[in-house]
Amino acid sequence: MHNFNLYLPTKLFFGQNRLSELPQVLKPLGSRILITYGGGSIIKSGLLDTVKKSLRDFTLFELSGIEPNPRITSVRDGAAICKKEKIDILLAIGGGSVLDCTKNIACGAYYDGDPWDLVLDTSKITRALPIVDIITLAATGSEYDAGGVITNLETNEKRAIIHSLLSPYASFCDPSLTQSVPAWHTAAGAADIMSHTFEQYFVKDGNILTDGFCEAMLRTVIQMTPVAIKDPNNYEARAQLLMASSFGCCNLLCIGRSASAWPCHAIEHEISAFHDITHGVGLAIITPHWMRYSLNTETAPKFAQYGRNVWNLTGDDTMVIAREAIDRTAQFFTEIGIPSKLSDVGVTDKHFEEMADHIPQCWSPLTDAFVPIDRNGVLEILKNSL
Amino acid sequence: MHNFNLYLPTKLFFGQNRLSELPQVLKPLGSRILITYGGGSIIKSGLLDTVKKSLRDFTLFELSGIEPNPRITSVRDGAAICKKEKIDILLAIGGGSVLDCTKNIACGAYYDGDPWDLVLDTSKITRALPIVDIITLAATGSEYDAGGVITNLETNEKRAIIHSLLSPYASFCDPSLTQSVPAWHTAAGAADIMSHTFEQYFVKDGNILTDGFCEAMLRTVIQMTPVAIKDPNNYEARAQLLMASSFGCCNLLCIGRSASAWPCHAIEHEISAFHDITHGVGLAIITPHWMRYSLNTETAPKFAQYGRNVWNLTGDDTMVIAREAIDRTAQFFTEIGIPSKLSDVGVTDKHFEEMADHIPQCWSPLTDAFVPIDRNGVLEILKNSL
Repeated sequence: MHNFNLYLPTKLFFGQNRLSELPQVLKPLGSRILITYGGGSIIKSGLLDTVKKSLRDFTLFELSGIEPNPRITSVRDGAAICKKEKIDILLAIGGGSVLDCTKNIACGAYYDGDPWDLVLDTSKITRALPIVDIITLAATGSEYDAGGVITNLETNEKRAIIHSLLSPYASFCDPSLTQSVPAWHTAAGAADIMSHTFEQYFVKDGNILTDGFCEAMLRTVIQMTPVAIKDPNNYEARAQLLMASSFGCCNLLCIGRSASAWPCHAIEHEISAFHDITHGVGLAIITPHWMRYSLNTETAPKFAQYGRNVWNLTGDDTMVIAREAIDRTAQFFTEIGIPSKLSDVGVTDKHFEEMADHIPQCWSPLTDAFVPIDRNGVLEILKNSL
Repeated sequence: MHNFNLYLPTKLFFGQNRLSELPQVLKPLGSRILITYGGGSIIKSGLLDTVKKSLRDFTLFELSGIEPNPRITSVRDGAAICKKEKIDILLAIGGGSVLDCTKNIACGAYYDGDPWDLVLDTSKITRALPIVDIITLAATGSEYDAGGVITNLETNEKRAIIHSLLSPYASFCDPSLTQSVPAWHTAAGAADIMSHTFEQYFVKDGNILTDGFCEAMLRTVIQMTPVAIKDPNNYEARAQLLMASSFGCCNLLCIGRSASAWPCHAIEHEISAFHDITHGVGLAIITPHWMRYSLNTETAPKFAQYGRNVWNLTGDDTMVIAREAIDRTAQFFTEIGIPSKLSDVGVTDKHFEEMADHIPQCWSPLTDAFVPIDRNGVLEILKNSL
């Protein structure tokens, strides 16, 4: 087993009707709050209004319009407000994108230069504002992890920023807030949770405990996503997806295991740095092709284990079960309404070469993946996904 | 799904050769350290000496002789040292008993009255010293939870003390330190981990995600314990057991589920309040009898799920698989060397009536257990275990 650290300092407040606890959670942190959010959905649903009414004892500021693939320009705007208005607390309301942007604002608020510097070099992060969030989408797991992903359109870069100071202080996870999420984003969120799990599950050395945790995550998403899509108000399905999402990126799934290269995320980040597609959709399209690229006699037993423990496949032929498990994965994404080709979401092969060149600069080397992926391998996966 | 909170603030430093990081972890917390430990094993192994040498920049005090079922008298001694010597940090070295005692010392240090008051009424806990620990036994999970168990021999009470301030600040979990644990305590520790899992798994409402987490815990312990007993220096087996132990009591396994009455712990605590037996051994003896008491047509599907997912049992007859799963559990405990009867460890039926009377005073009512257990039920389980 590999040595590891585990540190999960975020206080999770999970369940219905928990927002009455928000003021008492915020109170010890200060009085000046910057509320960050995306588009109009939390205005339309009345959530923003409800939150603001409950916080009448605080001084509130707002940053709206945070993008689905959040941009460094929004981070800059937020950091400027924090400095000017002497913000004590960031309150993110929305999905993972809002929260990711807010994490970069949290450290940007204490940094004199451009917040993009902190994305490029996290050793420059020395302090961060406390973050509390109200999560409205089961997907990224940003509510329980120390990372975020920021896009710089000037340089076509989409990069992760990870630092222990960026874990939210508290996350309010109310599954009923996710009941209004449309089928497309429910499916994309499910694919995101599954991809987080795959990235940590398919590594050189696993262990029986966290293999089991990963398999439980996958069974949960596979069982609950079709229910949530068919019956959006099904609280139980929404709750299980939201609970699973929180464990996707918090390191619980990778403890004691080989470091993962997160190859599907590396490739998808390149795609959505050039094309503004939904992250989870990109992941779902790439994943089966990455799996097929990675299947060989050495890796087949792990894919077969996945088939047996997640898809309940039976039989003695390891390679047959491995292939069937990959096919089931592709079929599942199709069944929940995700297109199977990058061309279906407007991606062309125009920037594929650039993307393949770019990965080693933005990401840990994919030579450390479950099966090493060189430049040609990236191009092969991209072309097969087209 | 039930609402829940999850808060896991302890920093886990897991793996070999991590103790060089201890001074830098302790430094921000202060300079005056009370080292707490039990018998002579950490002296004999040289661990205490190694730790003390690495902490030559700190002022060190010691409290030794903490008992396997730690007593309130040790807590009183420790709290007195903390007050007199203005201790900044508690450093517990040992198994769960040492750590449990240390947790009670941590809050006792800031309390003017008798620390037993805090066990009886945790609302009196307002502050606690930071605790760092070096765990030497895979069992209680105290290194990653907010609770401890203390025995008061004057009143024959063994009670849990649980408070968010009692989570360790940091836990050093080096599996190689558990390689010297003899077979008896390895087996008892394994039974403890399994019992923690059973207590949270067998409840009225589970959910697919944490059912899967629990099943992964059980498979891990069942697979790794015989390896660790046969080959005590097997690092991988020791590591998997130690990793599993940390998740047994930290609330990860019970999120979103019905509250558990922890019936086996309630009964075992009564037994070891009267007889100084090894906690995990008492649990292993009681567990199959509690399972048989709890098996009926309503609960059989859950026991069968346990049989299928943990013991790989197959077949269509739910009740047959449920019974087989319970028999396998009993057989497993026997195979790892644990006696199957309370009388084998010196327990008689002398205090059974008192124990049955006592549970409702010390514990949440067992009427909330998976299958409700009244006074007669407790007596039945005790007699069947004799």
